[in-house]
Amino acid sequence: MDRDKALRIVKKQLTEKRYVHTIGVMETAIELADRFHVDRDKAELAAIFHDYAKFRNKEEMRQCIIDQKMPHDLLLHHEELWHAPVGAYLVKKEVGISDEEILEAIRCHTSGKINMSQLDKVIYVADYIEPNRDFPGVEVVRDSAKTSLDIAVVQAMKNTILFLLTRNQPIYPNTFHAYNDMMMKVKERKLQ
Amino acid sequence: MDRDKALRIVKKQLTEKRYVHTIGVMETAIELADRFHVDRDKAELAAIFHDYAKFRNKEEMRQCIIDQKMPHDLLLHHEELWHAPVGAYLVKKEVGISDEEILEAIRCHTSGKINMSQLDKVIYVADYIEPNRDFPGVEVVRDSAKTSLDIAVVQAMKNTILFLLTRNQPIYPNTFHAYNDMMMKVKERKLQ
Repeated sequence: MDRDKALRIVKKQLTEKRYVHTIGVMETAIELADRFHVDRDKAELAAIFHDYAKFRNKEEMRQCIIDQKMPHDLLLHHEELWHAPVGAYLVKKEVGISDEEILEAIRCHTSGKINMSQLDKVIYVADYIEPNRDFPGVEVVRDSAKTSLDIAVVQAMKNTILFLLTRNQPIYPNTFHAYNDMMMKVKERKLQ
Repeated sequence: MDRDKALRIVKKQLTEKRYVHTIGVMETAIELADRFHVDRDKAELAAIFHDYAKFRNKEEMRQCIIDQKMPHDLLLHHEELWHAPVGAYLVKKEVGISDEEILEAIRCHTSGKINMSQLDKVIYVADYIEPNRDFPGVEVVRDSAKTSLDIAVVQAMKNTILFLLTRNQPIYPNTFHAYNDMMMKVKERKLQ
């Protein structure tokens, strides 16, 4: 699917602000894909559709998680997490994208997971650092993303967990396991 | 076992500084046990022996974890965690304490776990707030422990995870699950 068609489709699903964010994620994802030798067409499509389900009704998302037998523990955690797996499902069903690597990058773009692919990491980091993002710690991750995708990922995960902890929020297990997984890999590599 | 005998036994296992800490944990645990209606004799014994294995040789602890089929993921994490489950094992084997509630409180006093008993929580908090402890955030937990054992536990867990994150350490899964478990329980109760 070409970029213009993809953008036309996703625009109808988003607010103006979220569409601007999506363009930012797309441009950043392409930059990161080129830098870290990831398929740029897949990065472009995954970025364009990463927030496809962002504005779906909460009850529709809850029902989709139940009907499609997505991990049940999603329902115990904040609905902010739901649009990612629901989005992957709807992008396949409604838009017709069936590339499993693209769908997986959409599926884990909010929580992260153990053993993220390079494409998963590109979308995760692009979503975190795209130019419209402005929150404490984003500059450090932007800097890291110039040289190491893994360090950028682990810093973004760490910031996300710190943010949730200081707000007395529970942490979705995948996020925590993803952080441990990436932190251990980054540390092992430094020791080698 | 009476207090004097227990203290004589544990003193041989500890440095002077760690023995002073142990006395602090014992006194705090008895206070907390009385306040929150927990068996004070069990709290006393669990507190006295909580650091029994603190100064065992790292290799001895590693071998014990393997031989006794303790959770294998302990070995992937910092050895600071090892003395708690190894301690529970040695306190049973060498000291002859067989009360499973006491052993469990020793076993989980560093990591925490899902569904901690009231005795587990008393030892976890006493270890964190005893009078010789002096680190950022300890005063808040001391204050909370005057009225709510659960809030004190979750604050101590949160501080521990924050501390590890800021030092780019992985987080032992039990610690993270314990935090989620306690935070969700505390929040649910507030909503009721």
